[in-house]
Amino acid sequence: MKALVFSEGGLRLEQRPVPVPAPSEALIRVLVAGICNTDLEILKGYMGFTGIPGHEFVGVVEQAPDADWIGRRVVGEINAGCGRCESCRAGLERHCTHRTVLGIQGRDGAFAEYLTLPQSNLHALPEGLDTQTAVFTEPVAAACEITEQVHIRPGSEVLVVGAGKLGILAAQMLALAGASVTAAARTESRLKLLRSLSISATTPDELGSKTFDLAVEATGSPEGYEIAVSHLKPRGILVFKSTYPEPLTVRPARLVVDEITVVGSRCGPFAPAIDLLRRGSVKVEQMISGEYSLERGTEAFEHAGRKGALKVLIRMK
Amino acid sequence: MKALVFSEGGLRLEQRPVPVPAPSEALIRVLVAGICNTDLEILKGYMGFTGIPGHEFVGVVEQAPDADWIGRRVVGEINAGCGRCESCRAGLERHCTHRTVLGIQGRDGAFAEYLTLPQSNLHALPEGLDTQTAVFTEPVAAACEITEQVHIRPGSEVLVVGAGKLGILAAQMLALAGASVTAAARTESRLKLLRSLSISATTPDELGSKTFDLAVEATGSPEGYEIAVSHLKPRGILVFKSTYPEPLTVRPARLVVDEITVVGSRCGPFAPAIDLLRRGSVKVEQMISGEYSLERGTEAFEHAGRKGALKVLIRMK
Repeated sequence: MKALVFSEGGLRLEQRPVPVPAPSEALIRVLVAGICNTDLEILKGYMGFTGIPGHEFVGVVEQAPDADWIGRRVVGEINAGCGRCESCRAGLERHCTHRTVLGIQGRDGAFAEYLTLPQSNLHALPEGLDTQTAVFTEPVAAACEITEQVHIRPGSEVLVVGAGKLGILAAQMLALAGASVTAAARTESRLKLLRSLSISATTPDELGSKTFDLAVEATGSPEGYEIAVSHLKPRGILVFKSTYPEPLTVRPARLVVDEITVVGSRCGPFAPAIDLLRRGSVKVEQMISGEYSLERGTEAFEHAGRKGALKVLIRMK
Repeated sequence: MKALVFSEGGLRLEQRPVPVPAPSEALIRVLVAGICNTDLEILKGYMGFTGIPGHEFVGVVEQAPDADWIGRRVVGEINAGCGRCESCRAGLERHCTHRTVLGIQGRDGAFAEYLTLPQSNLHALPEGLDTQTAVFTEPVAAACEITEQVHIRPGSEVLVVGAGKLGILAAQMLALAGASVTAAARTESRLKLLRSLSISATTPDELGSKTFDLAVEATGSPEGYEIAVSHLKPRGILVFKSTYPEPLTVRPARLVVDEITVVGSRCGPFAPAIDLLRRGSVKVEQMISGEYSLERGTEAFEHAGRKGALKVLIRMK
């Protein structure tokens, strides 16, 4: 099969054998896969991953332990737990310390014609949900993780710092929960996009002295952290929604005196994400910046890394 | 009156006028006051405070708007809110941005013969609670703030890093809540003290690879943070219980990938603290390292700053 492979030499289109699923796994023919910021970080060395990256996908099941799955259009949870440890037994496979993670850790990913995943990771897609929308399931689930972890009260004043892919989805999710959301973005085009989604948007400078109950850091930069933490009310909550590899300098006295809570937030639940996309509650169409064939995958990555780009998709054929 | 006054020239015993209470305030004759680490930090410049430090005290009311208070033995909440802002209206005077804080911010404190506080800050002490025990109300309340902010399940595995005054009280509080508490301390005397309180105690090195549901950082040092965060389970909670002025370097990726929650924690509720001390559930007697007269206040501070010292008390006469 054709696959985009990342190694020391960089990202290259290669010919690879079709993977052989383990007894509990399904073989999935990939239809489309999305490039995430984590993929761009992997190309800079994040997680030390080499192999086939890619973890946002829609595919069709070709082989599975349970024949009912065969032929179904699916998305798949990206963390595959060991099934035996304390985390797995508590239903938290996402936090299994022995886990593999699709296209991120110990498991080849979705920028290929085929991938394998445990059958128990799969979610069948409803008919009314098109493939191009469904490929956003994983990042929408990551946005859902915020409300999974933090109780958002209707009317809560929420700030989302950063209007990248995850910031835009988080702002939409929090608005759906009834929060009064302000998104901070720097460029005119991003402010316009947010406003087209009925999200109140402003530049960080225009925030002035306004403070919020909750702030989501979705820039992955120390500057974003400073903006988020400096606009929190006492007892406010800061959600770290970006994985970023650099260390960050914080002032513990500020966190203690104002009793700030900082919540690290990663992968979320797929089922509600699928439902929100199916019902059209979360809008993703405006976020697609480009679409490439697998053969043009390296071009797709260049596009995704360009300033101003949002979601770039790779179609397998 | 006699008072310990901190200014650019250092800490000195001075003669000061007896303070005049505002219409809503009480005048309190101080019986005894405790030296807290925050007081030691103030002498290094923390909060830029000058004046009379001291915020842990027991006193007797001499004047009050409501005559019922006069003659009563009291402790007092240290934050005095404006009474009008959003925080105050929500019952969170402790977080009023216009607040004064006894001996810490904009208000003279307890290392003096007299102090003033809003009458509404006072808590009368029950007869069965002696003055030397009751002076621990404020730090016990700070320990209660942990269970005020975080739901501790019976059997939760909890690590307390640091066996200073606050660490010892936090370990006791968390054990009372049914948690399985391990306290990490470096010196033989501190390990022995913890064990005498039926707290399982160990050196940080002996923790090995054991992980916990919750870790309390009570050392006020970057090293303490590293010990705490590296012994947390995925989705674990880290409580910052020490105010420390230096910046701290954290790795956001670790917080995000393992979905760690960091909770800043400061002043807590007085009523349950008084009750826990009255019932003898929290033990403080072993924590008293010395007692000095107000005239020997600077000596008391020297003692409190010495390695190995725990609570040093100042008696007003």
